[in-house]
Amino acid sequence: MPISEYPTLTAAADAFAAGEVSAVALTEACLARIAAHDAALNSVIRLDAELARERAASLDAARSRGEALGPLAGVPMMHKDMYYREGRVSTCGSQIRKNFVAPITATALSRLDEAGAIDCGTLNMAEFAQNATGHNAHFGDCRNPWNTDYCTGGSSSGSGAAVAAGFVYAALGSDTGGSIRLPATMCGITGLKPTQTRVPRTGVMPLSFSFDNVGPLVRSAKDAARLLKVIAGRDELDPTSAREPVPDYEAALTGDLRGSRIAVIETYFLEDADAPVMAAFEAALEVLRGRGAEVTRIALPMMRAINACTAMISRVESATIHANWMRDRPQDYATHLSARIYAGYGVPGPTYVAALSMRGPLLRAFVAEALSAYDLVVTPTLRTRVPTRAETDADADMANWGRMMAASANTRPFNYLGLPTVSVPCGFDDRGLPVGLQLAGRPFAEARILAAADAFQRDTEWHMRAPNLA
Amino acid sequence: MPISEYPTLTAAADAFAAGEVSAVALTEACLARIAAHDAALNSVIRLDAELARERAASLDAARSRGEALGPLAGVPMMHKDMYYREGRVSTCGSQIRKNFVAPITATALSRLDEAGAIDCGTLNMAEFAQNATGHNAHFGDCRNPWNTDYCTGGSSSGSGAAVAAGFVYAALGSDTGGSIRLPATMCGITGLKPTQTRVPRTGVMPLSFSFDNVGPLVRSAKDAARLLKVIAGRDELDPTSAREPVPDYEAALTGDLRGSRIAVIETYFLEDADAPVMAAFEAALEVLRGRGAEVTRIALPMMRAINACTAMISRVESATIHANWMRDRPQDYATHLSARIYAGYGVPGPTYVAALSMRGPLLRAFVAEALSAYDLVVTPTLRTRVPTRAETDADADMANWGRMMAASANTRPFNYLGLPTVSVPCGFDDRGLPVGLQLAGRPFAEARILAAADAFQRDTEWHMRAPNLA
Repeated sequence: MPISEYPTLTAAADAFAAGEVSAVALTEACLARIAAHDAALNSVIRLDAELARERAASLDAARSRGEALGPLAGVPMMHKDMYYREGRVSTCGSQIRKNFVAPITATALSRLDEAGAIDCGTLNMAEFAQNATGHNAHFGDCRNPWNTDYCTGGSSSGSGAAVAAGFVYAALGSDTGGSIRLPATMCGITGLKPTQTRVPRTGVMPLSFSFDNVGPLVRSAKDAARLLKVIAGRDELDPTSAREPVPDYEAALTGDLRGSRIAVIETYFLEDADAPVMAAFEAALEVLRGRGAEVTRIALPMMRAINACTAMISRVESATIHANWMRDRPQDYATHLSARIYAGYGVPGPTYVAALSMRGPLLRAFVAEALSAYDLVVTPTLRTRVPTRAETDADADMANWGRMMAASANTRPFNYLGLPTVSVPCGFDDRGLPVGLQLAGRPFAEARILAAADAFQRDTEWHMRAPNLA
Repeated sequence: MPISEYPTLTAAADAFAAGEVSAVALTEACLARIAAHDAALNSVIRLDAELARERAASLDAARSRGEALGPLAGVPMMHKDMYYREGRVSTCGSQIRKNFVAPITATALSRLDEAGAIDCGTLNMAEFAQNATGHNAHFGDCRNPWNTDYCTGGSSSGSGAAVAAGFVYAALGSDTGGSIRLPATMCGITGLKPTQTRVPRTGVMPLSFSFDNVGPLVRSAKDAARLLKVIAGRDELDPTSAREPVPDYEAALTGDLRGSRIAVIETYFLEDADAPVMAAFEAALEVLRGRGAEVTRIALPMMRAINACTAMISRVESATIHANWMRDRPQDYATHLSARIYAGYGVPGPTYVAALSMRGPLLRAFVAEALSAYDLVVTPTLRTRVPTRAETDADADMANWGRMMAASANTRPFNYLGLPTVSVPCGFDDRGLPVGLQLAGRPFAEARILAAADAFQRDTEWHMRAPNLA
């Protein structure tokens, strides 16, 4: 059952553009849902209700004056609390930055502003974006709208919960090892991690500059396509951002997968996968075949080398960024996080450099073996069923640490490889929690992965399901 | 006293282009000097005399047919033995690679070939390009043509000695901490380290990818300008190479320094400098003033921070590159080199990342304080007089290690900063060894530093002096 009359970002934006609905109405509906249900979910850190109402009213006025408005005009959003807006507190989900006033505005936010989006506030997240489950010792865990005993996924926990609960139409997340795709999966929505460097990172809290990505959590692939078009593209303030042209992603969504060659990598990605996950995954492959795709199963032993290199890099970079705070106030970090960061100080420089140096050769090898004869790779986004918050709570018991970290097994290799990857809902497990399908493509092939995800969503309704909120 | 009728690269190339001299005659003169004097200098590793003669004859024939030839046509050169040529052994000055047959040709060599240069063979160098003095335990030390008891400087030792001795008109060196500028200084010639990424590094032995640079050792700034124009510019095979347009460097050499603002940084660069070096340096400043430059002395405390960050990076990257050999055959390295590389394994990853992360901010600060109000920075290239080989021989006595490493104090900060830097001879010390003047400029301002160096050389003859070879 869809959340409202305008269940998706694109439906809401199109309705606003067509004069069918006002920005104020869209915003009030969102604010009402937040007021009614966020106490149960704990997805919001900061609600800027009055600012959002003013912004909505000014958009309605601009529309009534016939002004040209952007492709996201009138759409209420909230974003992970690590996207800086000048003069606003950005907590980064931490005690340490609880009062940090951002000195600049993130380029991604500026671009959303220019496109007419309405920013209603900031969302809960894992402390400094560093767990895959959504636990947070300082702001409280974010809770899964499908069942509050379960993880939302992290680190963009609030982004996953808020979009799934219909609080907003889109939320930026960040993805360093799966932090967009995992909450998208666990909350039953669509999450896109673009190609490394595709979206500029100016004004976004850094965690690991080699792996950090900006991307949206939304309801549908079409929503992701529209939003990506707005935020992607070179930013002179971020010298690492790509100069690659930004295509019209939405125009690529034809629904036609005839001739598409899809690889299922059996090595690593399917190992020890839970049966309900595999059942949903196999059913998803049938849907893709039904749209004309040819699906082939391949083995790829190099996945072990890729996985071995991945962990080193973000640990070392995170340890570097947090060095002064870890020295001066380690007690202000959650136990699971300080344990994770401490390990980075023990990694020798040459081990780090070697892991980075293998990135190019391993990407070339992966593309040669998995993305030359095939256009796309698909995997379950999460190999297991969505875990409970209790069984992955490493602060309560460090014995749970392994389970907390395991959640990103299928997502983090694509951060190392830098490839564009989208996760879409593809069913539910036996406990009623969502299952996700991950599609990855060649560098800068966002149009292709979104086209496949959109084709899948034309034949499925998983992404349109809404949780029953108490 | 100049070495021959055509003492410089540009004089020789222009004479060849004008039909005044044949490539064969230029080549035979070089080969004769090598035959007569290299036993004393030990600058050559591999002499390709017959190949050079054939190449010279074919250039003469092409010229007689009226074919259009490149700007370096007819000019004999030899290069540091770490520029790969497909199918040829490239020893990298090491025991470990004594029989390494290069699988590809360096882009710099291909570009010199296309420009009509004649490649006569390969030159001695510090083992794996890792000392600043020119010691080599495997091929023997390269010896200074001005006095064979003294260091040539390293790591491009053979390049410095061979050009100074008139064996060839130009030699590529590589510069990771001063390895072009130091042998240029100690041997009394001109050496250019371009902006980081200006010249592609495809097919060049890597030492530290953050700091490695390709550049020429030649007699004059004009020679360097002509050669740089040939080797600079984007190479798709080296994704780190700059896309910045390549100007006509030679056209920038007007001799006019009126309005030029030159900074002398007294902090760090002049500390504990030897008196004969300072005397030559002060005299050089007078020459620059005579050409119209305005010279200002400034203090720059940040030099200590820059120096602290510099050492970490090349150590770690070198340790990474050498990891397998250091594990399997450490006995095949000279003692001073294995000691240097071992230290890299102890540097923690976050220390390395922190040093790299400071590079941008420190470059911005340096440019703001030293290269905004001023066009150029000048320093002595080497603070001390040229040391003897004995007093810097760390393999004989590790107590000499500090002196061996100290030689690069004034050059290595510009590798960390990535700025273009040229060294020109500016006098002789009380022992008859050359003194060098280092000029550094803004990123990609090679034209400006070469113009200042050329203006200096219009009023001085230091670069045209030739050593008396026995």
